[in-house]
Amino acid sequence: MTALWAIVLCGALSILYAIWATASVMKSDAGNPRMQEIAAAVREGAQAYLKRQYMTIGMVGIVIFALLAYFLGMLVAVGFLVGAVLSGAAGFIGMNVSVRANVRTAQAATISLAGGLELAFKAGAITGMLVAGLALLGVTIYFAYLTQFLGLGANSRTVVDALVALGFGASLISIFARLGGGIFTKGADVGGDLVGKVEAGIPEDDPRNPATIADNVGDNVGDCAGMAADLFETYAVTAVATMVLAAIFFATSPLLVNMMTLPLAIGGICIITSIAGTFFVKLGASQSIMGALYKGLIATGVLSLVGVAAVIYWLIGFGPLAGVKYTGMALFECGVVGLAVTGLIIWITEYYTGTDYRPVKSIAASSVTGHGTNVIQGLAISMESTALPAMVIIAGILVTYSLAGLFGIAIATTTMLALAGMIVALDAFGPVTDNAGGIAEMAGLPKEVRKATDALDAVGNTTKAVTKGYAIGSAGLGALVLFAAYNEDLKFFIANAAKYPYFQGVLPDFSLNNPYVVVGLLFGGLLPYLFGAMGMTAVGRAAGAIVEEVRRQFREKPGIMQGTDKPDYGRAVDLLTKAAIKEMIIPSLLPVLSPIFVYFAIYAIAGGGAAGKSAAFSAVGAMLLGVIVTGLFVAISMTSGGGAWDNAKKYIEDGHYGGKGSDAHKAAVTGDTVGDPYKDTAGPAVNPMIKITNIVALLLLAILAH
Amino acid sequence: MTALWAIVLCGALSILYAIWATASVMKSDAGNPRMQEIAAAVREGAQAYLKRQYMTIGMVGIVIFALLAYFLGMLVAVGFLVGAVLSGAAGFIGMNVSVRANVRTAQAATISLAGGLELAFKAGAITGMLVAGLALLGVTIYFAYLTQFLGLGANSRTVVDALVALGFGASLISIFARLGGGIFTKGADVGGDLVGKVEAGIPEDDPRNPATIADNVGDNVGDCAGMAADLFETYAVTAVATMVLAAIFFATSPLLVNMMTLPLAIGGICIITSIAGTFFVKLGASQSIMGALYKGLIATGVLSLVGVAAVIYWLIGFGPLAGVKYTGMALFECGVVGLAVTGLIIWITEYYTGTDYRPVKSIAASSVTGHGTNVIQGLAISMESTALPAMVIIAGILVTYSLAGLFGIAIATTTMLALAGMIVALDAFGPVTDNAGGIAEMAGLPKEVRKATDALDAVGNTTKAVTKGYAIGSAGLGALVLFAAYNEDLKFFIANAAKYPYFQGVLPDFSLNNPYVVVGLLFGGLLPYLFGAMGMTAVGRAAGAIVEEVRRQFREKPGIMQGTDKPDYGRAVDLLTKAAIKEMIIPSLLPVLSPIFVYFAIYAIAGGGAAGKSAAFSAVGAMLLGVIVTGLFVAISMTSGGGAWDNAKKYIEDGHYGGKGSDAHKAAVTGDTVGDPYKDTAGPAVNPMIKITNIVALLLLAILAH
Repeated sequence: MTALWAIVLCGALSILYAIWATASVMKSDAGNPRMQEIAAAVREGAQAYLKRQYMTIGMVGIVIFALLAYFLGMLVAVGFLVGAVLSGAAGFIGMNVSVRANVRTAQAATISLAGGLELAFKAGAITGMLVAGLALLGVTIYFAYLTQFLGLGANSRTVVDALVALGFGASLISIFARLGGGIFTKGADVGGDLVGKVEAGIPEDDPRNPATIADNVGDNVGDCAGMAADLFETYAVTAVATMVLAAIFFATSPLLVNMMTLPLAIGGICIITSIAGTFFVKLGASQSIMGALYKGLIATGVLSLVGVAAVIYWLIGFGPLAGVKYTGMALFECGVVGLAVTGLIIWITEYYTGTDYRPVKSIAASSVTGHGTNVIQGLAISMESTALPAMVIIAGILVTYSLAGLFGIAIATTTMLALAGMIVALDAFGPVTDNAGGIAEMAGLPKEVRKATDALDAVGNTTKAVTKGYAIGSAGLGALVLFAAYNEDLKFFIANAAKYPYFQGVLPDFSLNNPYVVVGLLFGGLLPYLFGAMGMTAVGRAAGAIVEEVRRQFREKPGIMQGTDKPDYGRAVDLLTKAAIKEMIIPSLLPVLSPIFVYFAIYAIAGGGAAGKSAAFSAVGAMLLGVIVTGLFVAISMTSGGGAWDNAKKYIEDGHYGGKGSDAHKAAVTGDTVGDPYKDTAGPAVNPMIKITNIVALLLLAILAH
Repeated sequence: MTALWAIVLCGALSILYAIWATASVMKSDAGNPRMQEIAAAVREGAQAYLKRQYMTIGMVGIVIFALLAYFLGMLVAVGFLVGAVLSGAAGFIGMNVSVRANVRTAQAATISLAGGLELAFKAGAITGMLVAGLALLGVTIYFAYLTQFLGLGANSRTVVDALVALGFGASLISIFARLGGGIFTKGADVGGDLVGKVEAGIPEDDPRNPATIADNVGDNVGDCAGMAADLFETYAVTAVATMVLAAIFFATSPLLVNMMTLPLAIGGICIITSIAGTFFVKLGASQSIMGALYKGLIATGVLSLVGVAAVIYWLIGFGPLAGVKYTGMALFECGVVGLAVTGLIIWITEYYTGTDYRPVKSIAASSVTGHGTNVIQGLAISMESTALPAMVIIAGILVTYSLAGLFGIAIATTTMLALAGMIVALDAFGPVTDNAGGIAEMAGLPKEVRKATDALDAVGNTTKAVTKGYAIGSAGLGALVLFAAYNEDLKFFIANAAKYPYFQGVLPDFSLNNPYVVVGLLFGGLLPYLFGAMGMTAVGRAAGAIVEEVRRQFREKPGIMQGTDKPDYGRAVDLLTKAAIKEMIIPSLLPVLSPIFVYFAIYAIAGGGAAGKSAAFSAVGAMLLGVIVTGLFVAISMTSGGGAWDNAKKYIEDGHYGGKGSDAHKAAVTGDTVGDPYKDTAGPAVNPMIKITNIVALLLLAILAH
């Protein structure tokens, strides 16, 4: 009980930090009236979009809430609600801070680079801390409510189901937000660039381009709100899955409650270390922005090492643990592996997307021979970039499993995700600086200001790529934990078939010899491909609509190009809002419905009865792994590849291979355009889709048990 | 014994057909001296390349031969030699016919379209029949030699190992030929287009382009010899794996020999139906070339239905089979499923790559807004195109497994591959017509001739795509059969651990709960990505070298562009030969060495001993499935996507969206360039890499057993 209170306190601390930081951002200078006018347009667009998005998700949510309440009871349905509302809130608040910090960052950059960095990072940190804090508070308080207030057993089915439903609520927001936000932002970006840069020959963020406000809105709803929902979900789902595993592995151990509390405690202590880390982000004498950010990240990592050790020592000790073969020390070592995996994945992603290394340089070099070779080399790099992260994840699995079995993998993943506060801070920094650059351009601020915001923006590109690598790596590991939970849950129901008669005679066979397993693997494997295809097509369609709209405005108001008439920014925002909302629905439902479809299809094909159930459970389990296996590669190749294309363009713009305007630059712009939906729509949305498939399978088990 | 002789007779029939058809091709008119001069240059280049390629493979082969002879005995090593030599021979002879038929097809097209079609298809059919015939003869005669002449038991280890080694020999040729040929052909194509079409502004196949002979050489060594080796391998490996499964499932049955003969008999009868089918290929009143080819394919399919039924009835009857729960009729139904899967995959591939349907049209439409949107839509289509073939394969597995278990899947795959003669004929038709077009252009034949060869060439593009879909689908199914063989083989060694002491105490656990299985799946999953990345990069490098060489020639001999000086075609061919040979080695060794690496790495990590062996065998098994799961999607997306890009360009060239020279056309050329290494290098080479991984694992088992 003390532990839970301490964890709640940590969560509360993150809220306090957010309030303090928000106040500190808000009292900064908001710039001149022209800047404020632009910022207001961006803010209104973003708010209007999110409102519409959440209303649509709300309708889907109400249906699911009712279904859960009917099948699994009110406590489970409320868990779903808690997850959904908090996930939405983290994104919504973060986005609201972001759309206010953008203009202030632009203003601060007129004075000094250090000031701009401080403001932008603080704004990002608000989102980061809210993601980690709200996720931790949601899971902890609801767990405490169920176990302490209602007196349910920590590993009773209702508690487990309610926690899983909480994860599902978060997942649902996350897939819609990632996909809807991703379609919005890249529809605006690709469409705006095509008609502005290519056709009209005006620079990016030129105020004459009717799509430019929409582009800035997109940064906030995609990179900020979408990312926040995504990591909220991974954080909550991983904590929940680790708790479920603890509930199963330590069911009869005196350590049960402490073991279930452990993932929450790790989350709690790492919020403190993340907040502490934010104060290490300071521009040094070298003026290296990336260096300043890394200082904060490294400080958080080192402090977390100590913190996690303390928490484990306090809750379970370093010695042998009752009922299992490993020690508390081994679990700590698993935590260290989690931190090491984080560090390695960040380093590898930077290697593949940074302008200082072979991959990006090779894409830039291949741009000299044209659009085609740029894309070929970019695709080659995108595929190659999957190998090392996969090897790191493989090594992580092998080491932690040998240290402490499946629970070791879970603790490593939990520790990895406990840093989410700091990592989201790095990521949410990106859209703020991106917007600040846009506002500086549109408001006609002096060139030096744009130079400062450009420097911040370039670093934002790298941090965005790096965070995506982290998000996907952790999602892959998190999904393995979820698969373990599915498997253990299934075992539990079968062992207690007397109480859960549906499972009578069920004998799932997860062996690769079982053709239903092969079928499940293949079916799971195709989901990320189909989902990715839908995401890419949606961006293409949305961008096409924007191109038409902008052409129409240029045609009907010739004064826009002369600067004598104002473009109608609102229409572009409105059009994209509708397109994104419409396009996000079907792909989002794909992972929700797939496990249910596979279960009942295989059940019928295998002849029904206990044999049919066994075959169907095996196929669904295999499908969960199939979706991870291809999903991991699809997601990493898309996000790293997209980042590499983006920075290859920047590398050329820095004066290599003829610089801006050269033929190589034109080819690099093509690569960047291709990379846009890769890295910001389809790729990152694979994350939540992997986990949603897993979590729906867990809920399906619970529903069938009833 | 009678059956084996009958099968050998069928194989001999294919050789007779090839001899007859070759004579008939050779006596056609070889055109005017200018055409013959060009054709001679192409022929010399192709022969020089293949000679060098086979010498390099020979050196690798000698090492492997020695290793096999040392570890597994001379009979096994000779099996390897038989597979390698015959696979190489099929490609070599086919290519030699192809480089003679090209100029004759061009000449025939000066008289009539029907004549051109007849000649080109006959040339393709020679390669097709040789592939099926030599593969069948190799497996059958060596099997007969071992069992009848040497008197070894049909399911003795030596026979099984020797057959597996035969498959390995074929695989080794196939991966080198696919990759080396693919790098050559696309290096020439991409490089030649970049510097010719884009920089110098001269049309494709213009004799002033020094890379143009290399481009025509590439068609022959890549699409003809490479494809032949690939399907030879799939054919041989599937027959062998089905025989191995029969040896295991029917070990104690009186039907043993007949069951092991069955896959060979199905192959034999389908050679006859394929030869019969070639005579149905006739240009009808509608002048539809595709229609004429489909007539032949459909005739072969229908005749095969009857033939397979007859063979099954003759060898094992339609009634219940001793020792298993299914009937001969069920096995026939599995054969029907195999034919249905072939038909469906061909139909789906045509949908995704044909100019009449949504996918290609959508890529063409997206070209209007530029290079970026063309590539985005192409990538979306490439990802989407994996879903339906995967579903067909899933359905095929489910149906055949429920009919006759694992052996049912094997029989379906065998039947699917028995059509290889006809399918390769359709494919090998492509490079002949492609070359014919090139020769017509370079020899300055009248426009009408070029129009006829272009019509043939466009159909060749579709048949090439369709065949690749078939090759990959069958490879995916074939690999499942190989995995089953691995698994059954392992069970056999463990059951007889007294005789094979290495397997004492080994208890592999292929369950998805086993982290070593998850690790194996992930490691297997990354191989196609890494391999694909290497293939794409190699093409980029080779193309870059060609661009430099052509630029150098243009610079040093300004007379080339004026037509007063002759380009040095030989240097481009020579340069590509060296590049392709060098670039093919490391990627080809990746699948050969990976199973060995994974086995020993996991063995060490899991602490050695019986536990280490168990973990390692589990991981290697999972790796085999991992490589299939991602490999299937990577390969289908690349080959279908590439075909769609190619035909989207053709669709625009047919006069849509502004036609040739429009901005949309330029964007479509970019997409086509990207699609080139996708569809002709990396994508198809994934095929043999999937199977080579599997077959090396089988050999590893045999070696460890010794």
